[in-house]
Amino acid sequence: MQDEPLTVRRRDLLSLIGTMAGSAAMYHAMTALGFASESRYEGPIRLEGDPKGASVLILGAGLAGMTAALELRKAGYKVQVLEFNGRPGGRNWTLRGGDTFVELGGFKQTCAFDDGLYLNPGPWRIPYHHRALLDYCKRLNVMLEPFIQLNHNAYLHASRAFGGVPQRIRTVKADFQGQISELLAKVAGQGKLDEVVSKEDKEILLLALKSWGALDRDFKYKASLLASEYRGYAKPPGGGLSAAPLPSDPLALSDILRSRLWRYLENFASYNFQTTMFQPVGGMDMIGKAFAREVGDVIRYHAKVTEIWQNDRGVTVTYVDARDPAQPQKATADWCLCTIPLSILSQLPINVGATMKAAIDAVPYAGSVKVGLQFRRRFWEEDDAIYGGISYTDLPIRQIGYPNTGFNKSGRGVLLGAYLFEGANSFEFTAMPPDQRVERTVEFGAAIHPQYKSEFENGIAVAWHRVPFTLGCAGYWSEEARKQHYRNLCEIDGRILLAGEHASALPAWQEGAILSSLDAIGRLHERVIKT
Amino acid sequence: MQDEPLTVRRRDLLSLIGTMAGSAAMYHAMTALGFASESRYEGPIRLEGDPKGASVLILGAGLAGMTAALELRKAGYKVQVLEFNGRPGGRNWTLRGGDTFVELGGFKQTCAFDDGLYLNPGPWRIPYHHRALLDYCKRLNVMLEPFIQLNHNAYLHASRAFGGVPQRIRTVKADFQGQISELLAKVAGQGKLDEVVSKEDKEILLLALKSWGALDRDFKYKASLLASEYRGYAKPPGGGLSAAPLPSDPLALSDILRSRLWRYLENFASYNFQTTMFQPVGGMDMIGKAFAREVGDVIRYHAKVTEIWQNDRGVTVTYVDARDPAQPQKATADWCLCTIPLSILSQLPINVGATMKAAIDAVPYAGSVKVGLQFRRRFWEEDDAIYGGISYTDLPIRQIGYPNTGFNKSGRGVLLGAYLFEGANSFEFTAMPPDQRVERTVEFGAAIHPQYKSEFENGIAVAWHRVPFTLGCAGYWSEEARKQHYRNLCEIDGRILLAGEHASALPAWQEGAILSSLDAIGRLHERVIKT
Repeated sequence: MQDEPLTVRRRDLLSLIGTMAGSAAMYHAMTALGFASESRYEGPIRLEGDPKGASVLILGAGLAGMTAALELRKAGYKVQVLEFNGRPGGRNWTLRGGDTFVELGGFKQTCAFDDGLYLNPGPWRIPYHHRALLDYCKRLNVMLEPFIQLNHNAYLHASRAFGGVPQRIRTVKADFQGQISELLAKVAGQGKLDEVVSKEDKEILLLALKSWGALDRDFKYKASLLASEYRGYAKPPGGGLSAAPLPSDPLALSDILRSRLWRYLENFASYNFQTTMFQPVGGMDMIGKAFAREVGDVIRYHAKVTEIWQNDRGVTVTYVDARDPAQPQKATADWCLCTIPLSILSQLPINVGATMKAAIDAVPYAGSVKVGLQFRRRFWEEDDAIYGGISYTDLPIRQIGYPNTGFNKSGRGVLLGAYLFEGANSFEFTAMPPDQRVERTVEFGAAIHPQYKSEFENGIAVAWHRVPFTLGCAGYWSEEARKQHYRNLCEIDGRILLAGEHASALPAWQEGAILSSLDAIGRLHERVIKT
Repeated sequence: MQDEPLTVRRRDLLSLIGTMAGSAAMYHAMTALGFASESRYEGPIRLEGDPKGASVLILGAGLAGMTAALELRKAGYKVQVLEFNGRPGGRNWTLRGGDTFVELGGFKQTCAFDDGLYLNPGPWRIPYHHRALLDYCKRLNVMLEPFIQLNHNAYLHASRAFGGVPQRIRTVKADFQGQISELLAKVAGQGKLDEVVSKEDKEILLLALKSWGALDRDFKYKASLLASEYRGYAKPPGGGLSAAPLPSDPLALSDILRSRLWRYLENFASYNFQTTMFQPVGGMDMIGKAFAREVGDVIRYHAKVTEIWQNDRGVTVTYVDARDPAQPQKATADWCLCTIPLSILSQLPINVGATMKAAIDAVPYAGSVKVGLQFRRRFWEEDDAIYGGISYTDLPIRQIGYPNTGFNKSGRGVLLGAYLFEGANSFEFTAMPPDQRVERTVEFGAAIHPQYKSEFENGIAVAWHRVPFTLGCAGYWSEEARKQHYRNLCEIDGRILLAGEHASALPAWQEGAILSSLDAIGRLHERVIKT
């Protein structure tokens, strides 16, 4: 009996350890018990055992492909990478002045941004819990700076509320939170929570609501210097004889509710958008370039794959030079790790089993449009005191993202004038020629920033459904499709296996691409050293 | 009748303009009506009119004094500055490796930080609405970077709650918000809000609570992937075959309430601590140094003022060289702008009227202690995924501030190991010798970060009540004292007037010092050009 395993709740055990040995010991126990688990990533992958010269052909030099190239070569594999574009990174991509881009349909855009300004058409932010990506940034010396997701002084805008006047996020947030707290304090005071909250807890709850909701001594949220200390002042505190502040007037709860502006608040608290977020200094493609410094020598650029064929001894991939497609060429290896987006892969001849093929065909790709706009001056900082962060609107542009770099400087700036993700507006913008996308973005944005009209200089618009190397921004899994096809997509099929954000539970995130790749090469390696 | 002024509520007028002319016109009207007022600062001060060679003696080369020196000289005044320290900036101060500091009582500390690491013993953050300070940073080319106030992944720690185990801010915040929302949704569903919320609003309120509180379809906040999308996962989403996430377990509302951890949440929403905050790249004293590049030629360092004497023709200030106090010297001018902290000024002979003298004597100075600790490695990032921001604790150290620069880099780091402001702990730490302050800080901090014990290298501790040039960290006005003395402190007394954070409604903030100075020199200039 004494040797039987003990069943104990983790938190009871922790509490015991805390009491017996102090909180430091408890912290270690907590970590040991997986309480503090932040990520699937537990440090650099260790592929132990000799692959005996096995070769892997990697399709795609995005983050998934380059992660695999780097780690497999380090583990002793022969690796080769075929990449469609003339640059590394795939969707890890930054547009700067002088860059050109031809989209499906033939429209060619040349970026006219000033030196030092840029747009990240694809990923643009990195959460603190994307441990694998952050570790590669560290190992590859990519400098990071904060990405501001929540800027209290940016705007929330509803065309048909508040006379169309954009509201500061701080006012909507403080007024909503304050009035919710007042309501709850009121019913608590009336004894209407007595069934669910103990008397002792109720007393503390009232204090907590007062603190959290900026309520006055009568548990009211109203025009006051106290509430202004959260929502902002009509006249802020100053210096000398003109110092006294004046309180501002809260928005009515009913007006906030009917405006629907509350629905943007969740964007600032969700796990993927919590502080501290990052962006690479100088543009997202600093990451792709850093990988390419390591594995660029095994990447063949401009290689457009046209067929993937395997037998039980290896894989043969046919490709053409995208600039001179007349001459098919072949590459062979023992194994193939394919990171080509499913939107493209589903159109290629590939002899995998029926279940993987069905999975490849099952995932539609999300549409997304990003428009970068250059302005003569950083009026959002100079006039509106908005430094970084995002304004949200119900207009088709959806978001205005302010640059998170070069703060408080004079001169030109580029902001993200529109970020549409799925939905009718995204399709509508995708259907327009690029110059019209830019034009419409400026028109809509002027409802929030009237300065657009006089300060706009030039813009560039990337509609992901028209980007030749992905035909969409990311795999758009339904729950149903994931249930039916996800495992089949990830299992090794003969000598072929897939990786990329589409083969992860973090779709559209770079971390998903890397974790997917690490999971895939881990399984591949296990198979290789067993054979 | 038709020409009588129309009385109309601002928001009615705005709404009318919005309807008639669209939201851009409304925005302009809003600004014109003062709705968008962000600050008292409306751009560089313009001191028009000829001061005809009037001279001003400025006491103190902190931000207030140097602002005055810069602007008055530009307007045609003869200016001279006397400064106690051997450097500009005053409380705008940064300690780096090799710096020494002797506090009252004679303890001398030498900072042993590695190159590039620093502690800001005084101000360390700049709100986005401190427009005057930001404008000087811009004009004087001080580079800024974000200061992270709220880091969702930092800790809240209560010694006697949760077995002493620190909780991530995200979990306390999400769980409190979620369970508050669930409670309110419950009573709303039971019709208990019907007196105060209309039926239509109630329907929207429920949707808003669901979104804001991460409630499920039954309006419950509970262990789920949805709630984990805010509080974090037990096992986060991954890639490939090991991708599926596992939800985490919320903390019980009762446990959160009793822990008192909720009281820290307000720190992340208040106007002075909202995103986007800033710090100068390289240390806060970059601002003082930038001012000194402009006005350093008129600053006399090491000048300890011993008497301030005025008659109706001018002011004579007696001072000694702090390094050789035997030889009193005199400086004279038509006017004197004194920015010496009241804690010091109240001890000096100064012939001002009784009301100003009473005001000078009326303001106690707050105590504050900051301790900087250098560690062998940035374990808070490497082990705990905490990048910048602040952990709060009920231990005497109160806060742990993580560096907001050098993110994701290898090697040593300096964090703010303690930041005590007023209260018994502050006095207690002030009373200790510096090495003991550091020792205690390491001991206490180890309850939150056990890594302290193995990674600690050296530290430095500044207790503001023992800092010779201020004898406290900032003017600590009571409401009563402000009512009675504030105006008397700010009025011009003969040929003397005062400025500094103590002469502002923004005590302890650099913006208060600058706005106070601008207000003072504006009034001084008016008087000068009238005479």
